[in-house]
Amino acid sequence: MNNPSFPQLRKDPIVDRWVLIAPERAKRPTELEELPHLTHHETCPFCEGREDETTPEVLAVRAPGSRRDGPGWQLRVVANRYPAVRADAGGVAMTDSLFAAAPGVGVHEVVIECPQHEPSLAALSSEQVRLVFAAYRDRLKALRADERIAYAQVFKNHGVAAGASVEHTHSQILALGRVPPILQHEMTAATTYQQSHGCCVFCDLLARERAVGSRMVSESENIAAFTAFAGRFPYETWLLPKRHAGHFDRLSEAELSDLAAAVRSILRRLGAVVEDAAYNYVLHTLPLRTESPAFHWHLEILPRLTGVAGFEFATGCFANPVPPEDAAARLRGE
Amino acid sequence: MNNPSFPQLRKDPIVDRWVLIAPERAKRPTELEELPHLTHHETCPFCEGREDETTPEVLAVRAPGSRRDGPGWQLRVVANRYPAVRADAGGVAMTDSLFAAAPGVGVHEVVIECPQHEPSLAALSSEQVRLVFAAYRDRLKALRADERIAYAQVFKNHGVAAGASVEHTHSQILALGRVPPILQHEMTAATTYQQSHGCCVFCDLLARERAVGSRMVSESENIAAFTAFAGRFPYETWLLPKRHAGHFDRLSEAELSDLAAAVRSILRRLGAVVEDAAYNYVLHTLPLRTESPAFHWHLEILPRLTGVAGFEFATGCFANPVPPEDAAARLRGE
Repeated sequence: MNNPSFPQLRKDPIVDRWVLIAPERAKRPTELEELPHLTHHETCPFCEGREDETTPEVLAVRAPGSRRDGPGWQLRVVANRYPAVRADAGGVAMTDSLFAAAPGVGVHEVVIECPQHEPSLAALSSEQVRLVFAAYRDRLKALRADERIAYAQVFKNHGVAAGASVEHTHSQILALGRVPPILQHEMTAATTYQQSHGCCVFCDLLARERAVGSRMVSESENIAAFTAFAGRFPYETWLLPKRHAGHFDRLSEAELSDLAAAVRSILRRLGAVVEDAAYNYVLHTLPLRTESPAFHWHLEILPRLTGVAGFEFATGCFANPVPPEDAAARLRGE
Repeated sequence: MNNPSFPQLRKDPIVDRWVLIAPERAKRPTELEELPHLTHHETCPFCEGREDETTPEVLAVRAPGSRRDGPGWQLRVVANRYPAVRADAGGVAMTDSLFAAAPGVGVHEVVIECPQHEPSLAALSSEQVRLVFAAYRDRLKALRADERIAYAQVFKNHGVAAGASVEHTHSQILALGRVPPILQHEMTAATTYQQSHGCCVFCDLLARERAVGSRMVSESENIAAFTAFAGRFPYETWLLPKRHAGHFDRLSEAELSDLAAAVRSILRRLGAVVEDAAYNYVLHTLPLRTESPAFHWHLEILPRLTGVAGFEFATGCFANPVPPEDAAARLRGE
């Protein structure tokens, strides 16, 4: 363990739990403060006209004739200035029985979801929200060509309580050299279920939720949404494509539009139930170069209205004070 | 799923993850607000003289002649007024392949750590901190007699960012009818390690940490403390008894005194590095009526200086911006 290079992935000596030791993250202006102060409009690096305050764009939706890294865009994707992983992470893997570690190889990008200083994705137009999900799709497709990357995690932190450090609406793509534990658990569980039941557990779950009805939140031609039966968080809502599909980035244009509309609608309903609710959303999709008939991509909306405290970190069991059936009724406006 | 009784334990339909659906918790004054306001001195239900604002005490350290549930105490343990579990939780277990649930049977207690309105455990005398850990020991011994209880989780939330809703220094004991997932994972890993290595993984880890030295924080006759090699949180510190022992509540008086002194000292050092740091601490010990030569009780201090955000909930992988070796040096005062 002499002079390790960071970022570094480390395995817990006892259980199968990995952490990213990422000192670059400590340089964020708001890090290590108990109540982070979000960056306001006057100094926002994500606003149109301040393109030189971000890293160069890797993707942008731009007006014809506008210049790269200049104004005139609707959406930009840039490398995170405070990355949790690096494409050139150094050091060697350690396979010691107690102290296992590996270089924190990966790519960490920020999706700047609109040019104006708007804090809320839900306040954007349906078309703008569609551009955001199209950007996720396009970046996943592009990252598939990078052989160092096994899995690209798309996620969003909205609000201080959800871990956001910049107010301007944005999301992140953190692409890693290994498949993270929760994805592995989901894939293993889905494969086991398919072997014993002969079908996809997510397809079965959706059919059962539609039959039960009490947790359904919304349904369109292509996308269904329901509160999670065992939601960790109040109002936790899962969105699934009705068509069985493992890879998010192969979704159709119709699925893309329906997904964007459903997310926007549910976030607006959440805001109507709990004003300015903080939330995370996370996309679970097959690893970039994995094919499996058992998996089914989905998006989880995780409102952050209750703290995650000692009990949760001690036990791995979450306490949720809002029954998911009540949550669904409120999200349906009942 | 007609009219379920709450609290209820539910298993996620896909992965092996349990949640407690606990509507009683929603009644807490500060629940479902993004930035909870702690109860201040003027209205604190935990201060001496307001014993009638808590449930009756189940344990107290009292001056001779003082009356139960009256003033004249140094420490009280009472039932939580907003319990996440109930001894009389009703309903039946559901073993459906997708919707598995069980009654949320258990006991939820609060340890009021001192009579005066002091927010910080670290500000109490060594003797008072010893009383707190003695109360954990005594309650675990008492709960062992309750056949409905499999595991009693001791934990502390200090500060808003760590999930505390009351300012007056206190901790909690949440006793459950089943062994929670993280404990199961630790016990399984420890048993596997002992089978392949012939010794306790925690004893080996402690020996290795002492040999490496860079993560050691403190060591006394009975208790050693080091920052976790794969700490999820900045300054995450583990405390272990040097004597191999699975059950916390069988610790010796000397171990008890050394543990209290070590926890108090480390919390004071943490406060010197990051002013008024929020933290959780959690005790991991063998389930009440389980014997295993492989397990070794320990206390984890989890400072809450960084948010837990979308990436962590998406992947199960934590990002920690402070290398544990740097954290240990700062906690040692270097």
